Amino acid sequence: MEIQPVKGTRDFYPEDMAKRNFIADLWKQVSLRNGFAEYDGPIFEYLAMYQLKSGDEIASQLFAFEDRGGRQLAIRPEITPTLARMVNQRINALPRPIKWFSVPRLCRAERPQKGRLREFFQWNIDIIGVDDCLADAEVIFCSVDFLSQAGLTNNDVVVRISSRRLMAALLGYFGIEKEGLEKVYGVLDKKNKVPQEAFGKMLEEVISDSSKRQKVQKLMAVESLSQLEDFAGSDKNANQAIEELKQLFNYLNIMGISEFCKFDIGIVRGLAYYTGIVFEIYDKSEQLRAICGGGRYDNLLADFGGQKISATGMGMGDCVLGIVLEEKGVFKNLSQKNGIEYFVALADESLQNESLKVVTRLRRAGRKADFSYKGGSLGKQLKQASAANAAMCVILGEEFTQKKQLVIKNMDSGQQDIVAVEDFFSRLG
Amino acid sequence: MEIQPVKGTRDFYPEDMAKRNFIADLWKQVSLRNGFAEYDGPIFEYLAMYQLKSGDEIASQLFAFEDRGGRQLAIRPEITPTLARMVNQRINALPRPIKWFSVPRLCRAERPQKGRLREFFQWNIDIIGVDDCLADAEVIFCSVDFLSQAGLTNNDVVVRISSRRLMAALLGYFGIEKEGLEKVYGVLDKKNKVPQEAFGKMLEEVISDSSKRQKVQKLMAVESLSQLEDFAGSDKNANQAIEELKQLFNYLNIMGISEFCKFDIGIVRGLAYYTGIVFEIYDKSEQLRAICGGGRYDNLLADFGGQKISATGMGMGDCVLGIVLEEKGVFKNLSQKNGIEYFVALADESLQNESLKVVTRLRRAGRKADFSYKGGSLGKQLKQASAANAAMCVILGEEFTQKKQLVIKNMDSGQQDIVAVEDFFSRLG
Repeated sequence: MEIQPVKGTRDFYPEDMAKRNFIADLWKQVSLRNGFAEYDGPIFEYLAMYQLKSGDEIASQLFAFEDRGGRQLAIRPEITPTLARMVNQRINALPRPIKWFSVPRLCRAERPQKGRLREFFQWNIDIIGVDDCLADAEVIFCSVDFLSQAGLTNNDVVVRISSRRLMAALLGYFGIEKEGLEKVYGVLDKKNKVPQEAFGKMLEEVISDSSKRQKVQKLMAVESLSQLEDFAGSDKNANQAIEELKQLFNYLNIMGISEFCKFDIGIVRGLAYYTGIVFEIYDKSEQLRAICGGGRYDNLLADFGGQKISATGMGMGDCVLGIVLEEKGVFKNLSQKNGIEYFVALADESLQNESLKVVTRLRRAGRKADFSYKGGSLGKQLKQASAANAAMCVILGEEFTQKKQLVIKNMDSGQQDIVAVEDFFSRLG
Repeated sequence: MEIQPVKGTRDFYPEDMAKRNFIADLWKQVSLRNGFAEYDGPIFEYLAMYQLKSGDEIASQLFAFEDRGGRQLAIRPEITPTLARMVNQRINALPRPIKWFSVPRLCRAERPQKGRLREFFQWNIDIIGVDDCLADAEVIFCSVDFLSQAGLTNNDVVVRISSRRLMAALLGYFGIEKEGLEKVYGVLDKKNKVPQEAFGKMLEEVISDSSKRQKVQKLMAVESLSQLEDFAGSDKNANQAIEELKQLFNYLNIMGISEFCKFDIGIVRGLAYYTGIVFEIYDKSEQLRAICGGGRYDNLLADFGGQKISATGMGMGDCVLGIVLEEKGVFKNLSQKNGIEYFVALADESLQNESLKVVTRLRRAGRKADFSYKGGSLGKQLKQASAANAAMCVILGEEFTQKKQLVIKNMDSGQQDIVAVEDFFSRLG
């Protein structure tokens, strides 16, 4: 019986796993140094949870199933609903602010395409319980901290920032009704993603009044924060939202990442639950979807049955990111870095047991060590050591039989040293 | 709307995640130092793959679903079928032996009970392409290496070892037909798990001939390898299987773990695919299910449409293991170990921007650093630092305003040093 993997899923052979681990390990490391604590939830939850607030696109892409108890379940397409559930469950016991991160495996029944798969990993960071846009700045800083730690610069990526709060205030000020706002957001979110003409047509469908529509079109052509004040007039909400954006850019400057960041009125975000600052990060080639996106969602905990507590966060998937990192050559030499430290080889088959003892002692001392099952000539074993990217070879031969000495061969330089067994191990510490 | 988690799944709050990471990180570390490379597969695969060889118990516990393309899929209940599929796909390109490990998330629709959940994590290690029982010894060594690295000794755990090959040879020698063997294995596997009387009754159901049954019952009372030879008589297969077990114990002795290991005729393993050495590890209190189990499965790759290539491996779940480690106090002080390194506090609110710069520099230098969003008095901030298990506090106050100096407070000893900002950062490296 010949079995295939399911389309849109990935097999992680060791060389693929090394790339996945490079990303996930760095996500974790950067999260921890920025003061976030790791959490996780189950891979499946009640279906109803994802139909509540995830937005139509995600809700239509669920892998849903029924268990034998008749429960309607689904594999998680995102982790934010789980986060909201978990925080609500313990809201009175958790010290605030809650700064949490997670690296969940997620599944969406999408049509597989470049940068989109049916199964992927997504870094999530969230700060719950802070109103100040310093929290939004910290989320953006943390995302940029990861990207620059991975080797990318402001020549490679750009953070595009706007504000749902600003957009809501201005659209209200223009006289657009609250009821239709969600549809309008959906269209505005497409501004950078579809040709100008198509954008105009989509806008016509959601804003029939041509004078209102013209105001919105003029607004969407704004290129800097300073141009916004003309639009806001004396509207208090709009002016507050502009002040908040200015304060955010001030924080980003203090944090030393302003060269990565740009105001962009076209950033609206597809998901229904955003309420304040929103941002997306793109690679500068502009050929790919967003590397990551996030923003403030002050109503979500209440929507999930909890108190109204302010929150802001970010999600970064591994698919688009992986393409960008691959293009920039970040994954080069990973197999060397992941190679074993000591390969123990035999010049004399009668030393097999002794060699096994050396391998075991190396492992017990915390060193990555291996040996050849096939055995054969020393040359063959050294070849196997090279294939395993071994840094050093430990050879047991005549010197061992006669004087309990090991030959230590540096596989890079070829240099050989002869060391007494006990000296070798005591130097390892 | 109030939403619950699904029964049998777990929420990993940061303190639970710290335990899960303690286990998973050590699984990875021990695998790597023993020369295994990490792989992974998708969380769901074709349902048919799990119905093929997983055994009735697992096949009856699948979370199965249909996608919109009408594909019959299931969340993975084990990773061995994926391993077989992946190895078969690239069998001619992969250098042998293949020494791989994985730490998959798995789901089984079981009734949740102590040590058994519907979602869990399982460490898997496998060696493919080695006939010699040295590979079985290495798998056992690796399991024990993890347990002792986690802090357990041979007073806490025991490895019970037997051989399917031996059992097959002896049962054949006793005249039991090959066709009924699978059912007989199922019963023999229960020897250590049910009362003696119940075991006798179960045996009657699968071996009707009383003289054959008596031979089997006598065999199952054997307590040491040396007693086996009387049963084997002149049967070549049985004697070879005994020799192999002796050689295995010889290897385990060379590897220095014989005090953990014990021959136990009652170890048969439930799964259908085992063909040689089999083993299970138990905590010595005998109150729990096996911590881990494994063995040789030489036909599995062929069963999945590949070549016949020998293989041996092991699986260790996190549920029973977690209970044992908790009981032994291994998880103590994890939150201290995971605390942040530097908490940056302000004695003067006007220094907020300067403090943010210090936090950012610490993070950029790879240090786990955080600060207070709430601010307030220095005392309040130091309290928050304690709650975050901070090792050190960095305080910006008068000394900073006047001389660009930081107060560095050791949170453990309470000792305070005053250091110039640039000296502090240059010492960090």
